Amino acid sequence: MITTDILIIGAGPTGLFAVFEAGLLQMKCHLIDALPQPGGQLAELYPKKPIFDIPGYPEVLAGDLVNNLMEQIKQFQPGFTLGETAETIDKLDDGTFIVTTNKGTKHHAKAIAIAGGLGTFEPRKPLIDNIAEYEEKGVEYFVKDPELFRDKRIVIAGGGDSALDWSIFLSNVASEVTLVHRRNEFRGALDSVEKVQELKKLGKINLITPAEITAIEGNGHVERLTLDINGEQQTLDTDFFVPLFGLTPKLGAIANWGLEIEKNAIKVNNALDYQTNIDGIYAIGDVNIYPGKLKLILCGFHEATLMCQSVYNRLNPGKRYVLKYTTVSGVDGFDGTRKEAEKAVVKSIE
Amino acid sequence: MITTDILIIGAGPTGLFAVFEAGLLQMKCHLIDALPQPGGQLAELYPKKPIFDIPGYPEVLAGDLVNNLMEQIKQFQPGFTLGETAETIDKLDDGTFIVTTNKGTKHHAKAIAIAGGLGTFEPRKPLIDNIAEYEEKGVEYFVKDPELFRDKRIVIAGGGDSALDWSIFLSNVASEVTLVHRRNEFRGALDSVEKVQELKKLGKINLITPAEITAIEGNGHVERLTLDINGEQQTLDTDFFVPLFGLTPKLGAIANWGLEIEKNAIKVNNALDYQTNIDGIYAIGDVNIYPGKLKLILCGFHEATLMCQSVYNRLNPGKRYVLKYTTVSGVDGFDGTRKEAEKAVVKSIE
Ligand SMILES: Cc1cc2nc3c(=O)[nH]c(=O)nc-3n(C[C@H](O)[C@H](O)[C@H](O)COP(=O)(O)OP(=O)(O)OC[C@H]3O[C@@H](n4cnc5c(N)ncnc54)[C@H](O)[C@@H]3O)c2cc1C
Ligand SMILES: Cc1cc2nc3c(=O)[nH]c(=O)nc-3n(C[C@H](O)[C@H](O)[C@H](O)COP(=O)(O)OP(=O)(O)OC[C@H]3O[C@@H](n4cnc5c(N)ncnc54)[C@H](O)[C@@H]3O)c2cc1C
Repeated sequence: MITTDILIIGAGPTGLFAVFEAGLLQMKCHLIDALPQPGGQLAELYPKKPIFDIPGYPEVLAGDLVNNLMEQIKQFQPGFTLGETAETIDKLDDGTFIVTTNKGTKHHAKAIAIAGGLGTFEPRKPLIDNIAEYEEKGVEYFVKDPELFRDKRIVIAGGGDSALDWSIFLSNVASEVTLVHRRNEFRGALDSVEKVQELKKLGKINLITPAEITAIEGNGHVERLTLDINGEQQTLDTDFFVPLFGLTPKLGAIANWGLEIEKNAIKVNNALDYQTNIDGIYAIGDVNIYPGKLKLILCGFHEATLMCQSVYNRLNPGKRYVLKYTTVSGVDGFDGTRKEAEKAVVKSIE
Repeated sequence: MITTDILIIGAGPTGLFAVFEAGLLQMKCHLIDALPQPGGQLAELYPKKPIFDIPGYPEVLAGDLVNNLMEQIKQFQPGFTLGETAETIDKLDDGTFIVTTNKGTKHHAKAIAIAGGLGTFEPRKPLIDNIAEYEEKGVEYFVKDPELFRDKRIVIAGGGDSALDWSIFLSNVASEVTLVHRRNEFRGALDSVEKVQELKKLGKINLITPAEITAIEGNGHVERLTLDINGEQQTLDTDFFVPLFGLTPKLGAIANWGLEIEKNAIKVNNALDYQTNIDGIYAIGDVNIYPGKLKLILCGFHEATLMCQSVYNRLNPGKRYVLKYTTVSGVDGFDGTRKEAEKAVVKSIE
């Protein structure tokens, strides 16, 4: 059992920044995310794209913003359960909660912050009858750990940035990379398209276009794919099949937790603390809805901050909280480090 | 008459960021600030100190944050009325407003955003009977424009960072700089104290401690000061007297605009758009109050953003607004510039 003060479901920018604000108030956080890495939409959907409306950043790459947030919260040593989906929640008699993931990992917390964004990312799957049989048996919709493919033969399908970028990356890991796309044209960053072109010429990526994968065979694990190349069938031996056809977010199991849902989002009390209809469960960032809501990163930061204050009052009833400025009081990490402004000296001049 | 869409009173971080969000929605802004420079508390009180709780910035100097915000809003060409205090407001029959400053400058706007922080900074004044007579006639509580002192004799009084830093800076501008403090010890950044020590040794700063200025003389302008040096009186000829004894913020004239005030702050509807009790007047950042309010920079950013949405709906009734991501849609400045993410290419690989 993992125990913590605030269990944060979703490690996007909102969930990550909540760790910092909680830490300032001496509360520990643990984050669950279905994705293999923190950063939410920024890390999964557009890590190399610039954002222009983060206050104080005329321009910042989404991936860099995530790295900066990770650096900012490091002092508060958040725990992570990655690659798992929060599925069920139980409220105990003492008002605390137990959240269990799809893999059975249990988390015990005093308060819950749902920062689930648009939900977990569900892969768009190719229309192949028996594909479900081979899931996690050679069919992978995400590259969770590139090492899985070390010295193996892999077929990637798709025509966007993910397909291009993983083909490039894995050409140095797998023994054989084949990229299949139903058109001749790829849509992605110019860099990536050119790099794939080059690796193809060097024989490091085997390119088959326009083509579609229509069947999977194998004894308990992917062994062979059937390709339809312009109406002609052809087979291809491989160890892995990785279709990268994009992701659609789904609120998923959280929708059944008894929370008030509106437009696929969780209703909260924006006039106070972004708490939901269930006492002790908050919803912050893209996942919540209230009058005037804007699904913007900077709004999640504010919501996370007010949520932490509310949880603090909950866990410390009767204790009067006085706002401290980080500039004035510094930041004391749980790891023993301290950040602070240079102290003024009091010194006479002779 | 200056005309604009949103007139922002207060050019602190909240007011500055509002320009950006308004610009994304094609609305023009003009800012009034009593201080000679933008940046509010950050620029006036702690420009060289680090802030640790700006989301995505593990550490940023307050002055750098202001510079970054100025850079971020540059595209939207905000207007500035600096060194003037908003004093009166008139609501016209068509629902627009005219705001007049203490110097008589008039501003006509469709909506008002008060981002006045803790108020205007009133200097703490030395207790010298006739000092008011010499204000702006040789007595200056702020260094608005260092050029005023070019080749003049100047006496600075005070023992903190402002007194130290302006003495250093003006030692290269004025013909003679005298620094007077009632103690021998100064309280400030180590750098500054050491630099003053050095300039004193070089004869570029004339230091008199412990001493107090007790009288001002002059015919229509400061000409001579009386100093009490350990009980002994001495006179000193000078062109300017600049007492830098710190600032206290005062809400000031805004408190008489008919707005609901609580704890020296303006009550707003935080459940929707941070509007005050007067239709068309909003209050954002440190200046407002609502249940759970935190006087933090990051909260002002969120409030500014929701305020802009509300003003947009006000100015464009019936027009359906669809949120655009800066990453996806880019940012079109009023100056003709455009920021945008690198476009994806659609390209075939041979
Ligand atoms: C292409 C694009 C461009 C954008 N540009 C901008 C922009 O310029 N400016 C801007 O402000 N915003 C922009 N956005 C929106 C911005 O990305 C979101 O507002 C932001 O990601 C929301 O952060 P979040 O932390 O609330 O949620 P998310 O980033 O969505 O993170 C939520 C996380 O929760 C996880 N999760 C959900 N449910 C569960 C569960 N049950 N169990 C475990 N994990 C779960 C998900 O896997 C995900 O990682 C853009 C979005 C896209 C797609
Ligand atoms: C030493 C110190 C350290 C701090 N550290 C932190 C920190 O670490 N993190 C954090 O989030 N916050 C911190 N703060 C607080 C932070 O500075 C404020 O939250 C922030 O400045 C508020 O921004 P604002 O734009 O709302 O108001 P302000 O920065 O106060 O700006 C308001 C502006 O309005 C002007 N104004 C007011 N009335 C009028 C009028 N009638 N006419 C014309 N102009 C007017 C003022 O001159 C001022 O420039 C700190 C504050 C101090 C003093």
